[in-house]
Amino acid sequence: MLEKRLEVSAEGKKVYDIVIENSFSNLVKELSALDIQERKLCIVTERRVASYYLEEVKSILEGRCAKVEVYIFQEGEASKNLSTVDNLYHFLITHEFDRKDMLLALGGGVTGDLTGFAAATYLRGIDFVQIPTSLLAQVDSSIGGKTGVDYHAYKNMVGAFYMPKLVYINVNTIKTLSERQYHSGLGEVIKHGLIRDRAYFEWIKANKEAIAERKDEALAHMVEESCLIKRAVVEEDPKEHGVRALLNFGHTLGHSIEKLMNFSLTHGECVAIGSLLAADISSKRGYISEQENKEIKNIYAYFDFPALPKELKAKEVVKETKHDKKMEHGKIKFILLDQIGKAAIYQDVTPEEMLAVIEQGEV
Amino acid sequence: MLEKRLEVSAEGKKVYDIVIENSFSNLVKELSALDIQERKLCIVTERRVASYYLEEVKSILEGRCAKVEVYIFQEGEASKNLSTVDNLYHFLITHEFDRKDMLLALGGGVTGDLTGFAAATYLRGIDFVQIPTSLLAQVDSSIGGKTGVDYHAYKNMVGAFYMPKLVYINVNTIKTLSERQYHSGLGEVIKHGLIRDRAYFEWIKANKEAIAERKDEALAHMVEESCLIKRAVVEEDPKEHGVRALLNFGHTLGHSIEKLMNFSLTHGECVAIGSLLAADISSKRGYISEQENKEIKNIYAYFDFPALPKELKAKEVVKETKHDKKMEHGKIKFILLDQIGKAAIYQDVTPEEMLAVIEQGEV
Repeated sequence: MLEKRLEVSAEGKKVYDIVIENSFSNLVKELSALDIQERKLCIVTERRVASYYLEEVKSILEGRCAKVEVYIFQEGEASKNLSTVDNLYHFLITHEFDRKDMLLALGGGVTGDLTGFAAATYLRGIDFVQIPTSLLAQVDSSIGGKTGVDYHAYKNMVGAFYMPKLVYINVNTIKTLSERQYHSGLGEVIKHGLIRDRAYFEWIKANKEAIAERKDEALAHMVEESCLIKRAVVEEDPKEHGVRALLNFGHTLGHSIEKLMNFSLTHGECVAIGSLLAADISSKRGYISEQENKEIKNIYAYFDFPALPKELKAKEVVKETKHDKKMEHGKIKFILLDQIGKAAIYQDVTPEEMLAVIEQGEV
Repeated sequence: MLEKRLEVSAEGKKVYDIVIENSFSNLVKELSALDIQERKLCIVTERRVASYYLEEVKSILEGRCAKVEVYIFQEGEASKNLSTVDNLYHFLITHEFDRKDMLLALGGGVTGDLTGFAAATYLRGIDFVQIPTSLLAQVDSSIGGKTGVDYHAYKNMVGAFYMPKLVYINVNTIKTLSERQYHSGLGEVIKHGLIRDRAYFEWIKANKEAIAERKDEALAHMVEESCLIKRAVVEEDPKEHGVRALLNFGHTLGHSIEKLMNFSLTHGECVAIGSLLAADISSKRGYISEQENKEIKNIYAYFDFPALPKELKAKEVVKETKHDKKMEHGKIKFILLDQIGKAAIYQDVTPEEMLAVIEQGEV
């Protein structure tokens, strides 16, 4: 039992807990605190995660609530769209879910974003709980109330800010992730160090073997540290009017790459490539040293992040950033590093600067 | 110039103004207070309303903001669905609307609900303004932040609570409504008196000719009084956990009828029929007198509300209430009148009571 608990507040009031455990055994206790006894629950999950964890989670909930229903969708970013949400609405209507019932998102970022959006909009909002099973979801997407789906090739264009009632993390689920999924999450972890906490970045460098081998202590420390950083940021800026935008480090070019590659690379991989390009711009501007930029490249390289795909045309990547939704009056809000452990928003990054770092071919 | 202004607050803080006017001439002034100068605006409207008011509204906004775009959809409840919202998302994406841009809902309840939902969910929420042109929208649906669309035949199943930045009412638009649309709104007006304010109900009875003839003073007074009632209710209970449910007087059976008639009757007409049936149950329970129930029937009759369609089977109407979304743990929250001017929620209304009032054929 880890039993770490982080309270997440908004405007000074507690909104929900993040519970960090190394099993599902306390899930019933945590859900019981949300008065599930007379409520119907719908576990929303995708096929791959279901094969690992659905029976366990379902069996511990049976008899503890009015009914447990299960909605399973095809895994992958391609399912994160209005059509899947539409099918989920249909499932909830035909199973007579009402305002007092509840959704449980069991899975990675796609599952959490999609389930959260359905919960935010079904009957103008019903309760939901995040049970993130990927590293990416545990340290990033399950915390902070961002929900949404893609609109065709446009990422997260449709969504809502809507808080879960609980985030229940079982860090042991990280062990069943593929190498590629795991590394995708590590991209966010490294990002947390880069934008907010130099000591954490140093810890990651010093413990890279234990992290790569998914040792218990390393996983537990990493998830907790990253949750603390994510919590601090979302508490400071729940609706992304300010500091929360710093979490979008690597996202401007990352999203363009993700879209142009038609989602054949993971979100984390694309953000990692975008982060390296943003670090290159930060270095070219003299905000970080060449040595620091090299350290950043080394740690990403250690975790086998892919290079910028050769088939992408630099101009198209830059052009695609025009559809980035973090715009204000047509200006892109680009995140750069002022130093390792400290990021800032820049609205003056030019297309030429982006072109230059892509074309130099170091990423 | 009427220049009535009602502030709407949530948790003690002002959220938006309801401005009641008799022209569009102050719209620019009101919108300018929302800093529209550098923002793109998209007027969302439907064909019929566009033919009356689009050119006027558009021309007074041109040059006052970054750009004015117009999205027109096919009028009617049948358009209030995810497919229209999907088309609107597409329009906004292709016209590069970003988080700082704004939607204006110009039209009746369908336009406001649909535009509000698109605003609530596009890029996780952009600003929107309600410019309601039907009586129903002016006194009811534009106030209080309920947004949403139907899911096939299920009314308002998908939606969000999302506040407008301004509600701008030009009461003169009431004069271009068809008799049927106007009466549809009067159903809500009468309901306001019945559930909350006996003196207002008496005023309606005493001024029914002026109301029927849409005299300026009658319209202005009626819209203001009803906005005051609606505001009081939504301020007291923004998320419909309590008193706001009283506004659903007439809605349980009304929604069933609306759905079974496949939306060939207006929302207001169906709610009027549902209100008369609810009054009948209130009378049978002895909460209101037979004389009071007759007064209620008389005022609806004066405004030519249709009778309960003969082709509907009582059992089917009652069965359909099972899909009502105002349920808690499978129990319908039925609104009855404790007296004229005072409504309350009852969870003990039986299917037999509903059947009895439908089958007695007085509505």
